[in-house]
Amino acid sequence: MDEVLIGIDPGLAATGYGVISVRGTAIVHRDHGVIRTSSSDATGKRLNILYKEISRLLDLYQPTGVGIEQLFFAKNVTSALPVAEARGVVLLCLEQRALLTQEFTPLEIKQSIVGVGRATKEQVQEMVKFLLGLTQKPKPDHAADALAAAICLYHRSKWHDLSNPRYH
Amino acid sequence: MDEVLIGIDPGLAATGYGVISVRGTAIVHRDHGVIRTSSSDATGKRLNILYKEISRLLDLYQPTGVGIEQLFFAKNVTSALPVAEARGVVLLCLEQRALLTQEFTPLEIKQSIVGVGRATKEQVQEMVKFLLGLTQKPKPDHAADALAAAICLYHRSKWHDLSNPRYH
Repeated sequence: MDEVLIGIDPGLAATGYGVISVRGTAIVHRDHGVIRTSSSDATGKRLNILYKEISRLLDLYQPTGVGIEQLFFAKNVTSALPVAEARGVVLLCLEQRALLTQEFTPLEIKQSIVGVGRATKEQVQEMVKFLLGLTQKPKPDHAADALAAAICLYHRSKWHDLSNPRYH
Repeated sequence: MDEVLIGIDPGLAATGYGVISVRGTAIVHRDHGVIRTSSSDATGKRLNILYKEISRLLDLYQPTGVGIEQLFFAKNVTSALPVAEARGVVLLCLEQRALLTQEFTPLEIKQSIVGVGRATKEQVQEMVKFLLGLTQKPKPDHAADALAAAICLYHRSKWHDLSNPRYH
């Protein structure tokens, strides 16, 4: 059975997810999308929607590893706090399933996908499209970022632990 | 049966809680304390401990309302993010039980307890001790803050909605 890796780009309004599977020495695209919540709802309700949807995804795909885009320190703390609240709920979901989780900075993800940390968003999306053999760039941005995090997890895990048969 | 109100002061390292019950026109102290997690554990594990402990408290005391100290915008975003992660998990627990939740700023809590927004921490703790008929000031600070949030919820709910029999 293929190993499944999931990438998650957490946010309160929009959480991106990307699902890939490892088949031999290749990676295969499985799914990507965005979990959206409405700003007209209370934060607790929005977090509960996120909790249920992430739980559903994890139970559906049964990943062996999850890559998360690390919280980028926004200039404005106000915009960082809802992201941190969503991130807390996502980390809880992963811990409840004892999932192997790795966090990557945006720089690490870009380096892993494009080879350089200063890559543009378009370059990252083009490479994600190429690496997964997609016919078009994955959309929206949050889902593309999540796919990139999943591929980064694949690359980094192989690199970090060559003795682990899981990533061969 | 007495109505129970809980106050929560969220944090990743330490989350304070305070439990009071409303008996006729009086409030009665029930419990207070702090849920601590170790910085040597991964964030996911710490959030899962918080999730389990808050869930246990809510199921034990079956509150009708919960008051939360609103996230104070720290000067340093780095210190605000773990608090926001913990807050996200607490809000999730409350939403999962469809609990009436109100958030208060530190200023609102001080005004409600002491009568002035510029009250010191010691003045707030003295008033919490007095209002709940305790023999000494509640400790530690996070637990005292949580009791203050619970009392604030009691005061504000009476004031905001006099027609609600729940708060008479």
